[in-house]
Amino acid sequence: MSLPSFGNPHYGLTRRFPNLSPDEAVAEITAALATQGFGILTEINVQTTFEAKLDVGIGSYRILGACNPGLAHQALSLDPGMGLLMPCNVVVAEEPNGQTVVSIAEPSAMFEPLHRDDLSDFAGEIRKRLQTALNAVGAE
Amino acid sequence: MSLPSFGNPHYGLTRRFPNLSPDEAVAEITAALATQGFGILTEINVQTTFEAKLDVGIGSYRILGACNPGLAHQALSLDPGMGLLMPCNVVVAEEPNGQTVVSIAEPSAMFEPLHRDDLSDFAGEIRKRLQTALNAVGAE
Repeated sequence: MSLPSFGNPHYGLTRRFPNLSPDEAVAEITAALATQGFGILTEINVQTTFEAKLDVGIGSYRILGACNPGLAHQALSLDPGMGLLMPCNVVVAEEPNGQTVVSIAEPSAMFEPLHRDDLSDFAGEIRKRLQTALNAVGAE
Repeated sequence: MSLPSFGNPHYGLTRRFPNLSPDEAVAEITAALATQGFGILTEINVQTTFEAKLDVGIGSYRILGACNPGLAHQALSLDPGMGLLMPCNVVVAEEPNGQTVVSIAEPSAMFEPLHRDDLSDFAGEIRKRLQTALNAVGAE
């Protein structure tokens, strides 16, 4: 049973790519994030995990963990607990209609658990870089 | 320059272990989470990443990504966007005073970006398992 459509969650920066496979989208968003100083440190293949552990079939669904070390160091210096919110997640998934969706965790939303209004500029700076990366996917 | 003390963030379940090294704490929390159905899918060594990328020295600081496949499937069936919040982070770090701290992302707090009050029971169920695992660390 496949998952419902990813939709456009208010806590994500989301775009759809009818002409990219999930593999192509992973390669493109990885390269685009690199230009913004974000490396991919982790990857979870949810599809194969569910298959192996639950014998449940879903479409392609991967969670990449992106980290910009300079920004991460700033964050941990402000509040060492912020490691509980890292890395920045990027979901690359196959929609029920076959389109590939790429969604990046929106920093202002992800900071909500912190209850710190003074971090909105910092969140905005991170968001700008992530949006620039997302905008570069599928450009050619 | 080491980081400030981890403190007791309201968005984490946190305990300190004066008699466990970070390696021992990682082994214990990994085993305790397994009894609650959570496997560790990812691990980020923040200390070595900062050393390699920024030439900055901090104490031991690791972020483990824990996932209970059954609960993750429930979550994604409710809202496929919830992959942006997965896995559940566990920080194991060395405090400035040499103590080892283990902190697990508190599910109710982590769900705040979703703005869904109807998920409080679900968050409570997850929290209970995580707290049980954390309570089992250092028990012997």
